[in-house]
Amino acid sequence: MIGGITGSQDISYMLLSGFFVFFMQAGFAMLCAGSVRSKNVMNILIKNVLDACIGCMAYFCFGWAISYGTKDSSSFSGEFAGEGWFFLAKGDHDASFTNWHNFFFQWAFTAAAATITSGAMAERTAFQAYIAYSIILSGFVYPVVVHWIWDTAGWLCNWKTDKDGNDDTLNGVGMHDFAGSGVVHMTGGIAGLMGAAIVGPRTGRFDASGRPMAMPGHNAALVVLGTFILWVGWYGFNPGSVLAITGDAAVSVARVCVTTTLAAASGGIGAMILNYSLYKVWDLVAVCNGVLAGLVSITAGAYALQPWAAILSGFVGSVVLWASSKLLLKLKIDDPLEAFPVHGACGAWGCIAVGLFADEKLLGNENYGALLGGGGKLLGNQILGICVITLWVSVTIGGLFFTLKMFGMLRASAEEEAAGLDESKHGGSAYNMEPSKV
Amino acid sequence: MIGGITGSQDISYMLLSGFFVFFMQAGFAMLCAGSVRSKNVMNILIKNVLDACIGCMAYFCFGWAISYGTKDSSSFSGEFAGEGWFFLAKGDHDASFTNWHNFFFQWAFTAAAATITSGAMAERTAFQAYIAYSIILSGFVYPVVVHWIWDTAGWLCNWKTDKDGNDDTLNGVGMHDFAGSGVVHMTGGIAGLMGAAIVGPRTGRFDASGRPMAMPGHNAALVVLGTFILWVGWYGFNPGSVLAITGDAAVSVARVCVTTTLAAASGGIGAMILNYSLYKVWDLVAVCNGVLAGLVSITAGAYALQPWAAILSGFVGSVVLWASSKLLLKLKIDDPLEAFPVHGACGAWGCIAVGLFADEKLLGNENYGALLGGGGKLLGNQILGICVITLWVSVTIGGLFFTLKMFGMLRASAEEEAAGLDESKHGGSAYNMEPSKV
Amino acid sequence: MIGGITGSQDISYMLLSGFFVFFMQAGFAMLCAGSVRSKNVMNILIKNVLDACIGCMAYFCFGWAISYGTKDSSSFSGEFAGEGWFFLAKGDHDASFTNWHNFFFQWAFTAAAATITSGAMAERTAFQAYIAYSIILSGFVYPVVVHWIWDTAGWLCNWKTDKDGNDDTLNGVGMHDFAGSGVVHMTGGIAGLMGAAIVGPRTGRFDASGRPMAMPGHNAALVVLGTFILWVGWYGFNPGSVLAITGDAAVSVARVCVTTTLAAASGGIGAMILNYSLYKVWDLVAVCNGVLAGLVSITAGAYALQPWAAILSGFVGSVVLWASSKLLLKLKIDDPLEAFPVHGACGAWGCIAVGLFADEKLLGNENYGALLGGGGKLLGNQILGICVITLWVSVTIGGLFFTLKMFGMLRASAEEEAAGLDESKHGGSAYNMEPSKV
Repeated sequence: MIGGITGSQDISYMLLSGFFVFFMQAGFAMLCAGSVRSKNVMNILIKNVLDACIGCMAYFCFGWAISYGTKDSSSFSGEFAGEGWFFLAKGDHDASFTNWHNFFFQWAFTAAAATITSGAMAERTAFQAYIAYSIILSGFVYPVVVHWIWDTAGWLCNWKTDKDGNDDTLNGVGMHDFAGSGVVHMTGGIAGLMGAAIVGPRTGRFDASGRPMAMPGHNAALVVLGTFILWVGWYGFNPGSVLAITGDAAVSVARVCVTTTLAAASGGIGAMILNYSLYKVWDLVAVCNGVLAGLVSITAGAYALQPWAAILSGFVGSVVLWASSKLLLKLKIDDPLEAFPVHGACGAWGCIAVGLFADEKLLGNENYGALLGGGGKLLGNQILGICVITLWVSVTIGGLFFTLKMFGMLRASAEEEAAGLDESKHGGSAYNMEPSKV
Repeated sequence: MIGGITGSQDISYMLLSGFFVFFMQAGFAMLCAGSVRSKNVMNILIKNVLDACIGCMAYFCFGWAISYGTKDSSSFSGEFAGEGWFFLAKGDHDASFTNWHNFFFQWAFTAAAATITSGAMAERTAFQAYIAYSIILSGFVYPVVVHWIWDTAGWLCNWKTDKDGNDDTLNGVGMHDFAGSGVVHMTGGIAGLMGAAIVGPRTGRFDASGRPMAMPGHNAALVVLGTFILWVGWYGFNPGSVLAITGDAAVSVARVCVTTTLAAASGGIGAMILNYSLYKVWDLVAVCNGVLAGLVSITAGAYALQPWAAILSGFVGSVVLWASSKLLLKLKIDDPLEAFPVHGACGAWGCIAVGLFADEKLLGNENYGALLGGGGKLLGNQILGICVITLWVSVTIGGLFFTLKMFGMLRASAEEEAAGLDESKHGGSAYNMEPSKV
Repeated sequence: MIGGITGSQDISYMLLSGFFVFFMQAGFAMLCAGSVRSKNVMNILIKNVLDACIGCMAYFCFGWAISYGTKDSSSFSGEFAGEGWFFLAKGDHDASFTNWHNFFFQWAFTAAAATITSGAMAERTAFQAYIAYSIILSGFVYPVVVHWIWDTAGWLCNWKTDKDGNDDTLNGVGMHDFAGSGVVHMTGGIAGLMGAAIVGPRTGRFDASGRPMAMPGHNAALVVLGTFILWVGWYGFNPGSVLAITGDAAVSVARVCVTTTLAAASGGIGAMILNYSLYKVWDLVAVCNGVLAGLVSITAGAYALQPWAAILSGFVGSVVLWASSKLLLKLKIDDPLEAFPVHGACGAWGCIAVGLFADEKLLGNENYGALLGGGGKLLGNQILGICVITLWVSVTIGGLFFTLKMFGMLRASAEEEAAGLDESKHGGSAYNMEPSKV
């Protein structure tokens, strides 16, 4: 899937898809900005902007090399990390490098993975700590996961081949994570969970008896804008991950558009029903998060799931979102954007959904979805993938945040937090409204 | 036009166009949010988000089948409604269905049609009533109109053929509604008019003597953002409606981009001139609506009109917008977004403009624009189309709203309306601003 | 580069790129709106909307003809201005015109050039004066610059040919301004500088002793939204300027995406480092402007610079932004959006960067970057180009603004400025927030 792209048509489509994926940065930024209190808006926004900038440099210097830097599957390093093309440079680079479009497309995904975390740690994290995280995730932690699952040399990749080009996938199928429910969203979501847990809840988020106190965001219009931009961006994310458009690929790309849409819609509807049933409120932010949960839930299976399974995945995603959200509150973990529920928990669910519902013909493998009669090999691999991603990201990013905490560098001071990070760190307020006459 | 698309190039272009069309959801959402009072922002936004979600399901289940579900033009049902592919499923679906891109593209148009109405009924409509409307319009009312005018079996379609593939169009030309001034915008606009009229004006919109009282929206920046996003989205809407890009189609697509742009610009300029001449105000919201009026006015004729006619259509559109807006106020119909003037009235004007100005060579039919010497057949068909769309949508959607009103389910209570729908139905305010220090 | 585009694939890519370029209008609008005080939001927004509308008409009537209206390089007019296709009409237009995509793509660039200026003159300029500017720039001043540098007949064009089709470039290389650091950004930026200098600073911007007083914008979220939209739009601007995607062009387009990205990122990082080093503030707006400075700085060299040079260009761009900003304050010129520093100064730097760093193979000319051993001819031409653009725009647009000032038509009255232009000229406030209960 990664290799063999030749025609300009395919390159054109991947670049355009990359533009849509990058547009998701604007979506994340608006979603984050709207979901925090007005005194911390500039703080979250500068993190979002610098995510894209710093992550870009880290990916250029190290990330791309670790992700896709070697195709030699016979060596240990080949299976667990790439090893070439640091700084996009290697030998005859000037003359022959024709892989710019892949670099661009993959960088846009990296930026998406990195930015997920900012929401989980919003409103109380030290700025420098976030910069450190951004470099490590974009340049090292995420690229390793990519290599495992998306590079043809990766040990979990579902199109891994040996030296002679024969199929060499784990259990004859590998892990099928089409556009990154696991690779991208779980990586970002688990990193966010580590961050939220280690930095601790915002002051006042839980009362003395441990009950959560509402801390609503400051601007619902920005939340909706962000949600729609993300939805639009997902049409680069999922269909673009076919990595081709010529020939039969066009039909696949179009099918992926449809499954993506259906899951988004059913996730939103699921959240609407769930929240009205439980709380008698037509909850806008919950519906927006439900849409995103649906989108995350279909990201792994957008290619291999039939429409009915896409609808089911999205709907279950909205339940997973709700349940994992409740669980976080029980654990007194404060995740202001629900970044872990949406991206981490639904990311895992998306991987499992493939193991359950992957269609034999669409997947093109006899080890297809367990509930459709394809046996347990695929499902086993999917669960294995979830476990190793969780472990890898928890240890590396958790270790980073823990170390920063030990040195007192992870959390803003109580005074800064109370005053708002914008006043204390960013030179003023995000909003300076003249008094309105109306 | 609908049939015969083969190459991946065409599919690629239609999908990308579909992404732009879907992006219009974000535009409508921002336009609506900015145009209402701040106490009803979440209410209008959740309608916009759920439009896309619920409309998607309704279109998946029923709408697509009714729109394009049969090609058998010899049967009655063939001319007036499709009859197959409910739930995207029919017989050998898994193996051979290659029409995903058309489904996706048409769904994006459905979402646009459905969401137009929310603005006309803003700030006082019961949430459940709107959900019911959304299902009925997306799943039934709009698809029927699509079938009439865009399906090769439809009785008004301008490329209708008989069983032997010979031309079978009404009066030798059918109705030419290229991208949907009538099909999409009038359908949404008439539905909005029915809604606004039946639900009644917002409390306080007209004083005791019947004079309209200003109820300005709360955020002009969102109105402009929405307008620009819609303008951008229109570059999916109109050029994408060529449904192809290969060969000569590319020149047509590019020409449609130009006519669309010229009409948008002249609509905005028209509104500027009109409003400054009459009221000595450089009215931002009026200019934005003028741009949209220009775009709606060129949507039917983007393919068949020369640039000069596109400019004229857009300019007249801004006058139609103003006049129909005045008329609504005279009739004490309260349409907060001017959804009927922009989409309904200018939609009708766009259809008429085709009857007047369609170029012989561009249209490819000897029954071309009446004012250019092409006789009255095309114009007659256009007017017939306007009438039947008006009648069909009025009866079905008007009937729905009337029924809901009879059961007391259409309008929020006076208390809820006064408090704002956000507080009473959606769990709080859209905005929670910390006091600014500046 | 302008000529010889045939296939539908290329047309398709240029149109899609044009959509992204036009989307930058939304980005500029949000950037401007967020950067001004809340009492002048509608004023700046209506200028942004009408820029697009009025500029479109001016470009349709005159601009296109002057930009690309003749290919006869033997005549004087051929070298300095085009002379045909006014109103997109000439002789056999209906039958044979197939250049719609170029018109569309170039119009989108025109709109970008025109709208840059609004920011520099924000919050105190008379509305009618801006309309006059908009027509003159889009219809005449900018098209002349385009003709010089981008039309094959233009005297500075780097693919100028004589009547027999032989290379006829100035000093054997011409000026290489790939996507318009000079043509688009300097033109807009210099016009803005003229405007800001001639209209004078906002009341209160400098105190009695001449020290600048802070006048922060009113909404940082809109600034970030605008920045991200502009960044996304730049993926139409730069890669689209390859004007083709078929064959080897695809690799070039992809490479341009990468250099554009790297420069944006390094510009943002440069601004972060610079502002924290100097002022100990993590300055969001400065980082956003740094990203834009990086993008402007790479626009001329996106095609001919290696990745390392792109990173360097962007980084230096952030320094140029800072230094030119300081200089403006020293000169007591008030440019609320930093439009001249970002677009004018960094635009000039972008042109120079090409003269310094253009790669021999990528440029395809033996007169390549001076610092890479390519001699001084290219650098000389780049500096010549900067000088003539500066001179041309200063004289024409400066003359216009000076004349308007002489007649008292350039600046809003002191009362209007104090009250805010929205109340005095646009019928009210952009914001009408109900009191929040929280």
